[in-house]
Amino acid sequence: MYSILCRDGGAKRARFETVHGTIETPVFMNVGTVAAIKGAVSSVDLAGLGTQVELCNTYHLHVRPGDEVVRKMGGLQKFMNWHGPILTDSGGFQVFSLAGLRRIKEEGVTFNSHIDGRLIKMGPEESMQIQSNLASTIAMAFDECPPSTAEKAYITESVARTTRWLERCKIKMSELNSREDTINPEQMLFGINQGGIYNDIRVEHARRIRELDLPGYAIGGLAVGETHEQMYDVLEHVVPELPADKPVYLMGVGTPANILEAVDRGVDFFDCVYPTRNGRHGHAYTRFGKLNLLNARYETDDRPIEEGCDCPTCRNHSRAYVRHLLKSGEMLGCRLMVMHNLYFYNNLMKQIRDAIEEGRYKEFKNSLLESMERGEE
Amino acid sequence: MYSILCRDGGAKRARFETVHGTIETPVFMNVGTVAAIKGAVSSVDLAGLGTQVELCNTYHLHVRPGDEVVRKMGGLQKFMNWHGPILTDSGGFQVFSLAGLRRIKEEGVTFNSHIDGRLIKMGPEESMQIQSNLASTIAMAFDECPPSTAEKAYITESVARTTRWLERCKIKMSELNSREDTINPEQMLFGINQGGIYNDIRVEHARRIRELDLPGYAIGGLAVGETHEQMYDVLEHVVPELPADKPVYLMGVGTPANILEAVDRGVDFFDCVYPTRNGRHGHAYTRFGKLNLLNARYETDDRPIEEGCDCPTCRNHSRAYVRHLLKSGEMLGCRLMVMHNLYFYNNLMKQIRDAIEEGRYKEFKNSLLESMERGEE
Repeated sequence: MYSILCRDGGAKRARFETVHGTIETPVFMNVGTVAAIKGAVSSVDLAGLGTQVELCNTYHLHVRPGDEVVRKMGGLQKFMNWHGPILTDSGGFQVFSLAGLRRIKEEGVTFNSHIDGRLIKMGPEESMQIQSNLASTIAMAFDECPPSTAEKAYITESVARTTRWLERCKIKMSELNSREDTINPEQMLFGINQGGIYNDIRVEHARRIRELDLPGYAIGGLAVGETHEQMYDVLEHVVPELPADKPVYLMGVGTPANILEAVDRGVDFFDCVYPTRNGRHGHAYTRFGKLNLLNARYETDDRPIEEGCDCPTCRNHSRAYVRHLLKSGEMLGCRLMVMHNLYFYNNLMKQIRDAIEEGRYKEFKNSLLESMERGEE
Repeated sequence: MYSILCRDGGAKRARFETVHGTIETPVFMNVGTVAAIKGAVSSVDLAGLGTQVELCNTYHLHVRPGDEVVRKMGGLQKFMNWHGPILTDSGGFQVFSLAGLRRIKEEGVTFNSHIDGRLIKMGPEESMQIQSNLASTIAMAFDECPPSTAEKAYITESVARTTRWLERCKIKMSELNSREDTINPEQMLFGINQGGIYNDIRVEHARRIRELDLPGYAIGGLAVGETHEQMYDVLEHVVPELPADKPVYLMGVGTPANILEAVDRGVDFFDCVYPTRNGRHGHAYTRFGKLNLLNARYETDDRPIEEGCDCPTCRNHSRAYVRHLLKSGEMLGCRLMVMHNLYFYNNLMKQIRDAIEEGRYKEFKNSLLESMERGEE
């Protein structure tokens, strides 16, 4: 299912075949938290943005509309009319960061819904059941996601529990996939490496979970407090310990620079809310760095956000118009910004794939990092 | 420029040729207040919704981004990338309803901007100058828009001033159109009939303003407090007094039923915020009346908003999905609702035009009114 087409230094150009279509990696997954990309971008729009994989959040969908509703509607693909691959997270990250966490126990966690305060229990089995109802292409293991810089003693204990939870996830997923009424019997489970910034814990954990022979592995718990250098250091230690014949997913990362560096260290999959969230706040990504479209200098600027960009926004609208919409609080401003930023990220990945294929990845990376640093003339 | 293709009872099927393209009437103009349709619908999307004319608000654009900015960007067409006809209102209605009105004098009105409180003076000349900067296809005369049920003595005085203002608008527009640096030297001025619910004032005013031989006439100050029957009664008295060889525009109207009745009384142009505003609040127009998509009955309803509808929303998404988006406060929910509702209104006008051409307008009107009244089975 996963085949490496070529390598260029540490960077890999690979292909991952799924029941919902082939994913060309390195890939950036576009975040559609509640089965919708924030900023009024629909699944139908994604074809024009170069999107390969949509990522949805298990916790959010469990509390609204409810995974049973999505199941009744035939799963996430039918529900949001997106027929490519979908990855669902496990709900763990949101439980630890967003919901009112009550208690972590061996069987799972209890917390209060951020919508109506109702007490919810979620453990490995519940997370797998919810993701099975959502019928995503790739389900993520239910893990604990402590701050990467938490104390070592706590991380050690937490990682041991995450390993036990992963074993339970695998058993439950296998059982769910073999049920007669399952929507996607080919649903895949990715394991998640944890261990904070402690390379020894990370490496030991990677060795443990690779034994479970899962179809893919993620590196979680990064980009949550540590420095970029600490993150890259973790990648250099962990990626070589994960199976070479499986895709590697760096969760929640990151800036274009982070992605360029992580690809160079062997990462295949990325996801991040930056292009959507920053877009809604007026920040546009370009090859010359980020522009703040709210800046008065763009008031009568009739150029597109990024000259030469082929996204639906840049093909049709000026900086001056987008700025006016943002200043006026018009939803259309958010939509145009988010479409540009998603296209930028998806197109960045395409350029990365091309560069790896052509054996010029280092040159591409350094040139783009320099251009983003230098800014627009 | 305006030619009647056929009549069916009081209803007219006509064609209005403008410098920015031909308008087939009866037509519903889609309201893009600040040079954008609310609900994240762009000018590029309008082609798929059957839109013929976009309407923008002079007052809003004057205060933000400023009509001088729009002028520098080449006028509204270039600014919002819409290359069909545009109608701008005069700013009068918003001044009287939205801004902090300070004083009405013979030369014009002074008021406070609703954005920054700054004192603004606007009279016939200023309104024409702003609309010339915006470079719309059709500019509306600057009028006073008192409540339709205001006292007769006040309405009489107000209408006399509105007539004097219209004469000044015509002179100013003519002067602006002949300037070398004007963006649209073919900009048209429509006069506006006022008179509240007093037919004698309305009729006398209509006779006065038709003498100015303008390219079109609007009926203003309705749908602001009087009953539907009072409005239809005004139409029956005023429309015959307006030139038969000019289009008639009923401002700010209205519900599908209002439009069906007004077409039957000889109206060509309509505009209203209902499809956008109601869409954003979860109300969808269908041939079986309005649906409130927030209703729990739609939670797992996999039908489109309106079965058989060919709009981008109904072709791609279910009621259940749209409801989920609205309940979650996702912008995409607003976008999908607004696209459906605008398509419904534009398609209603197309059906009206077809019915008039085929001499079955009364039958069409009665059948649709009955279907909307009966509701969905």
